[in-house]
Amino acid sequence: MKVTLVCVGKTDFSFVDEGEKLYSGRLGHYCKFSAIYIPQLKGVGSLTREQIKEREGELILRELHLADKNGKALPKGKRTVVLLDERGKELTSRELAAKIEKASETDNELFFVIGGAYGFSDTVYGVADQKLSLSKMTFSHQIVRLLFMEQLYRAFTIIKGEPYHHD
Amino acid sequence: MKVTLVCVGKTDFSFVDEGEKLYSGRLGHYCKFSAIYIPQLKGVGSLTREQIKEREGELILRELHLADKNGKALPKGKRTVVLLDERGKELTSRELAAKIEKASETDNELFFVIGGAYGFSDTVYGVADQKLSLSKMTFSHQIVRLLFMEQLYRAFTIIKGEPYHHD
Repeated sequence: MKVTLVCVGKTDFSFVDEGEKLYSGRLGHYCKFSAIYIPQLKGVGSLTREQIKEREGELILRELHLADKNGKALPKGKRTVVLLDERGKELTSRELAAKIEKASETDNELFFVIGGAYGFSDTVYGVADQKLSLSKMTFSHQIVRLLFMEQLYRAFTIIKGEPYHHD
Repeated sequence: MKVTLVCVGKTDFSFVDEGEKLYSGRLGHYCKFSAIYIPQLKGVGSLTREQIKEREGELILRELHLADKNGKALPKGKRTVVLLDERGKELTSRELAAKIEKASETDNELFFVIGGAYGFSDTVYGVADQKLSLSKMTFSHQIVRLLFMEQLYRAFTIIKGEPYHHD
């Protein structure tokens, strides 16, 4: 199965890049993993938060292969789109692993999306299959990526029955 | 106020060290911050999980200045001890900030403790004032430290009304 993590905004810290490389390498042993970074929009000083979310949303949709370059909707294949969102449901690591295992039985591709500072546009919510919350706390974008890549790695070790996760 | 993060186990990854240095430096602008690392116990192959927790617990207590070198309880000063624990209560970032602000009004020292792979001994639970859960998910020790130091930094920016945190 292909697993793609779509993130809005570039990372500022070299330690985040380093950590992401580590987990990305580990994930490569379990799935076709890739992380896609949508660069922070430039010259947005005059835009409202809603407008920024809309623009970011268009770029997210393109990465999900749900819309073509003109924003026209493409047919939805066997894929699941999960948003990392504070309004989502919290899962344990084992529950996340079970979800991934189940998706792997029917889907070709699994997308996880980490939004920008202001969250997702309604259009992005509209195409999402699930919303997942990691915590009641607000984490920095930088750290959420690291955290979630480690969590995906943990999920695959749970699926494979490997001795990494302790309950 | 003095804020001390006590962590069991050394970090394996240089990116974690790098990230911790960054947040530790930032925290230094808001409080007397220090992170204490209790090295992983050696030669524990023959010990049970309970025994490992007990031994780690003794070392934690020493760092909390609650016991002397012989394990004898010392009088409790104006301090709060918070365990990061899956059985704890989840807070939002603003709720954590409010707790820290409240503690700063009465306490001289605030301790946060991140336990080892098997959690805390009953003795450590016994001296804790509060238990805080970051997520239903299980995070790696390495990443929890980074994550929580960023969260402490975020809390102080909230207390000071600085523009770092977005709800």
